[in-house]
Amino acid sequence: MASESRVDVLIIGAGPAGLMCAHGLVKAGINVRIVDQRSKQVLAGQADGIQPRTIEVLQSYGLAERLLKEGNHIHMAAFYNPSPNGGIERTDRAPDVTAPTARYPFKVTLHQGAIETIFLDSMREQGLEVDRPTIPTLLELSTDESELKDANAYPVKVVLKHLEKDTTETLRAKFVVGSDGAHSWVRKTLKITMDGEHTEYIWGVVDMIPKTNFPDIRNRCAIHSNNGSCMIIPREGDKVRLYVQLSHKDVHVDPKTGRVDRTKCGPEQVMEVAKKSLKPYDIDKVGKIHWWTIYIIGQRVASQFSIHERVFIAGDACHTHSPKAGQGMNASMNDTHNLVWKLAHVLRGWADISLLKTYEFERRQYAQDLIDFDKTFSALFSGKPRTNDNQNGVSHEEFLKAFQTSGAFSSGIGIHYSPSMIVQNTYQTVVRNQTVGMRILPYVFIRAADARPYELQDLLPADTRFKILLFAGNTANPSQLDRVNILAENMEQKVLKKFGRDVFDVISISSAQKDKVNYTDLPEVLRSHWSKVLLDDVDMFQRTGGKGYAYYGIDSEQGVIVIVRPDGYVGMVSPLEKIEDVEAYFAGFLTPI
Amino acid sequence: MASESRVDVLIIGAGPAGLMCAHGLVKAGINVRIVDQRSKQVLAGQADGIQPRTIEVLQSYGLAERLLKEGNHIHMAAFYNPSPNGGIERTDRAPDVTAPTARYPFKVTLHQGAIETIFLDSMREQGLEVDRPTIPTLLELSTDESELKDANAYPVKVVLKHLEKDTTETLRAKFVVGSDGAHSWVRKTLKITMDGEHTEYIWGVVDMIPKTNFPDIRNRCAIHSNNGSCMIIPREGDKVRLYVQLSHKDVHVDPKTGRVDRTKCGPEQVMEVAKKSLKPYDIDKVGKIHWWTIYIIGQRVASQFSIHERVFIAGDACHTHSPKAGQGMNASMNDTHNLVWKLAHVLRGWADISLLKTYEFERRQYAQDLIDFDKTFSALFSGKPRTNDNQNGVSHEEFLKAFQTSGAFSSGIGIHYSPSMIVQNTYQTVVRNQTVGMRILPYVFIRAADARPYELQDLLPADTRFKILLFAGNTANPSQLDRVNILAENMEQKVLKKFGRDVFDVISISSAQKDKVNYTDLPEVLRSHWSKVLLDDVDMFQRTGGKGYAYYGIDSEQGVIVIVRPDGYVGMVSPLEKIEDVEAYFAGFLTPI
Repeated sequence: MASESRVDVLIIGAGPAGLMCAHGLVKAGINVRIVDQRSKQVLAGQADGIQPRTIEVLQSYGLAERLLKEGNHIHMAAFYNPSPNGGIERTDRAPDVTAPTARYPFKVTLHQGAIETIFLDSMREQGLEVDRPTIPTLLELSTDESELKDANAYPVKVVLKHLEKDTTETLRAKFVVGSDGAHSWVRKTLKITMDGEHTEYIWGVVDMIPKTNFPDIRNRCAIHSNNGSCMIIPREGDKVRLYVQLSHKDVHVDPKTGRVDRTKCGPEQVMEVAKKSLKPYDIDKVGKIHWWTIYIIGQRVASQFSIHERVFIAGDACHTHSPKAGQGMNASMNDTHNLVWKLAHVLRGWADISLLKTYEFERRQYAQDLIDFDKTFSALFSGKPRTNDNQNGVSHEEFLKAFQTSGAFSSGIGIHYSPSMIVQNTYQTVVRNQTVGMRILPYVFIRAADARPYELQDLLPADTRFKILLFAGNTANPSQLDRVNILAENMEQKVLKKFGRDVFDVISISSAQKDKVNYTDLPEVLRSHWSKVLLDDVDMFQRTGGKGYAYYGIDSEQGVIVIVRPDGYVGMVSPLEKIEDVEAYFAGFLTPI
Repeated sequence: MASESRVDVLIIGAGPAGLMCAHGLVKAGINVRIVDQRSKQVLAGQADGIQPRTIEVLQSYGLAERLLKEGNHIHMAAFYNPSPNGGIERTDRAPDVTAPTARYPFKVTLHQGAIETIFLDSMREQGLEVDRPTIPTLLELSTDESELKDANAYPVKVVLKHLEKDTTETLRAKFVVGSDGAHSWVRKTLKITMDGEHTEYIWGVVDMIPKTNFPDIRNRCAIHSNNGSCMIIPREGDKVRLYVQLSHKDVHVDPKTGRVDRTKCGPEQVMEVAKKSLKPYDIDKVGKIHWWTIYIIGQRVASQFSIHERVFIAGDACHTHSPKAGQGMNASMNDTHNLVWKLAHVLRGWADISLLKTYEFERRQYAQDLIDFDKTFSALFSGKPRTNDNQNGVSHEEFLKAFQTSGAFSSGIGIHYSPSMIVQNTYQTVVRNQTVGMRILPYVFIRAADARPYELQDLLPADTRFKILLFAGNTANPSQLDRVNILAENMEQKVLKKFGRDVFDVISISSAQKDKVNYTDLPEVLRSHWSKVLLDDVDMFQRTGGKGYAYYGIDSEQGVIVIVRPDGYVGMVSPLEKIEDVEAYFAGFLTPI
């Protein structure tokens, strides 16, 4: 029995990339479906590390609270090296995250299944479930140019097979997202190649609850021992993950597939290597091993991230790399976080379909940077330690430096999108410390109406709207208030009315002190609600807030306009008088109403 | 049809006091029932203000997060007085809370129904629902002395009538709590008198969404106008509550009941008075009035809070006062918060039944202090403002001073239980800034095992256990570590083994720095889990923590023992060598196993 149906967006694969996409779209009210070949979600193992920027992103969807509650927080890293007395000894402890502006200055570890559940539960509240076990058996894209350029057309035909019901369904979609993992069927069907190669490094992974006298078992540890390298990742509850370097004599690699033969080497062998590498400390498992794997690091990026901006690939489908820096799930979720608002804008008719080209432009560059980072980091980590007998080995100083300089990138905080139709840095100098193309810096301001402190990022949710932050300068000064009144009138005409009020949320931030001004001082167009006016001042107990203009590098008398994209990245900054340039920025991709 | 059943604790009345009691008991695994005469819970109006200490208490039960999310936060207070030009003008703005150690330095406003729902939802997870509409028709307490003293006996007989099912049930209870409001049936049945009187002050209250140009509508405002006083309380969403002083000419008081005749004066009249008092600002309502009332302030305390420590009264049943300082719901919930752990200890056989005497001892003194506070505050607030024509009126300076000096009390932070079998202040001087009998000061420490910062209060949940906080001093010093090892051995023998490990949770706090020590340094009796060892140090990003010993006023070399009661109040402090005195403290009310 066959049926035929239509959908705006079909997502193939319900891992982190697919779920971020489906969740974001359904929250935006977009007609979306998501299918997965597995009959149940992942319950153990797999990816587990959430980086600081990803926590900020999850918070913008209202999902971070549960992650923070359920997950383990890693604040400290410890470094061990060979001891002159044999075995290992601690060389150093350092912050695990090197990103001073991080709102959450730590990593969260939680197994992938629990993270997926956070998305699934929130999707369910919006009425969306994953259709599983379901596989695509055919994917065809129209070759009609006019159809491909028409955002209202359904140029993608997909045949789905529902495995349990044993039924087939033909679906017409406006857009398809292939987030179906490293062995992506979508990617292969589209004949998109992966560029890059496998490395020589072989690693074993075990998840278990340890019994140990090792004093850093709850910190992330990078252990260089003469028996090989080892990484410890503390997890939720009392769980710990060990990454253990294996040598080619430990394992058998199938020369045909390039994969490790798992019948020859299992978790017990991995534990044995770990035990030797941790000497003089003892480590053993309590109960069973929860999950394990052995793999050879591959470092590859897809040559394209979409076909005609109608079928996209995301997540592991377009990049594979070492898991040890905890990047995989983060890169995947941030791929589709980048895509969601663009699809929503195009589907609503707010933006031109060409906006979708910025997905590959922004995320492929990021993926290439990720592979470069991974090559450096993997080589250092898999290399032999420097000892008296091996002066060519990796020294602690060298490793720590690489660890810390890579922190901005690996935390995700340093992600920097290059100039494009949506990143316009002409007036960068008016906001000295906030880079255009990077995520809006978190900072605390107080609300003018009630002096309640708010993290600015919490006022910029991922709700698909552009946020116009008007740093209004010193509104206690009547001449500045005149400038603001003129700007408000211009903004109303040239932006809000032109492209539609629904596309924007306007928030004003005055540099005046709370005892000097009232929220009612500002023109009504700047306060669609009493909560939309902020002050750069401390809270009533001087516990938080204040000096925000200086933190962002903004003139506290003159002010500035900051345009924050729906995904939290700064798209443009402008002086108050250059509202025509703001208009031109939006006209580059938004459709006037 | 009649049935007969047994229960450990029966709670009559499911308002804030009753729900706090039922929730705490069911979470502790106590066999409890709760009945209420209303067929549905309150949906609007009534009490709505949650004070800083009550937020801390709710957090200790895991309930604060939702309250903070759903409620409005009041940070700022504004003061208006007659303007020389007619109407009112702003005299001052100030913090709404005057309690420097408050963990949450603000009030939360949320209607009583929403607060009750937080309890009801959490109770439901534990399998407990309110039995309603149900009223007690008989309450009899045994006069048999031995039965009254036997914690396992059921000396209370209650007949309940289930109004909807029209059935009657006879119940035998070990303990009964009457939290059935100002007109308490339980109190009247027990013939407990209320001491105190009504005042002359008449107030009207309206809840609505305002349309106004008044710039402080989202702050708590104390307005002294020549037209009478008015208080503005911003609420959840865009709602606002107005308290409006009425004069005897506005309303008709029934001379027989002493209550206001509501047929003669309604919400429209209250709004009219408010409009006049707020001139030159305009205020009107958007839509309907959500709730209103008119009342005469009464200030009374029950002469007893229990009969033979088998039937207790709590909440409005034992104290009534002005609602304007936002105390009512707080006093009520804190009554039963004080009672819950005591009942649990007695019912489990951990503590002697005489422990229950401390409920009336502690809470009746508090209620008397509350009435004294209310008399001062009400008189000042209801008094005429000082103007050129009225030099005997209340000046702003006088009012602000009273407002601020009463802050410690009204916030609940200043609650101080006097010495008793559970408050022992012999060694007060060893902890200079933490008063014995007051709640444990909130402060951030980091965990030794993973450098994660934690608010100490979050490690001391209201789980009915006593928390032994061992401020272990500088454990990087071997001689101090020797002292700690000896103490650990003594504590094991004289406290943990003697009274039972389940009664206690032991947390150690070392003053050593994180790069100097490992959590594994401490003896195993002090670390039932890796998470139980803290350090007085900053977190990895120096954002929080550090200098905790100085904050509490504890010698950072020598350390000290701090005993925190299950309700979060400090019961005793002691030098490390005085563990015998700690033993004696517990022996005063706990039963050796």
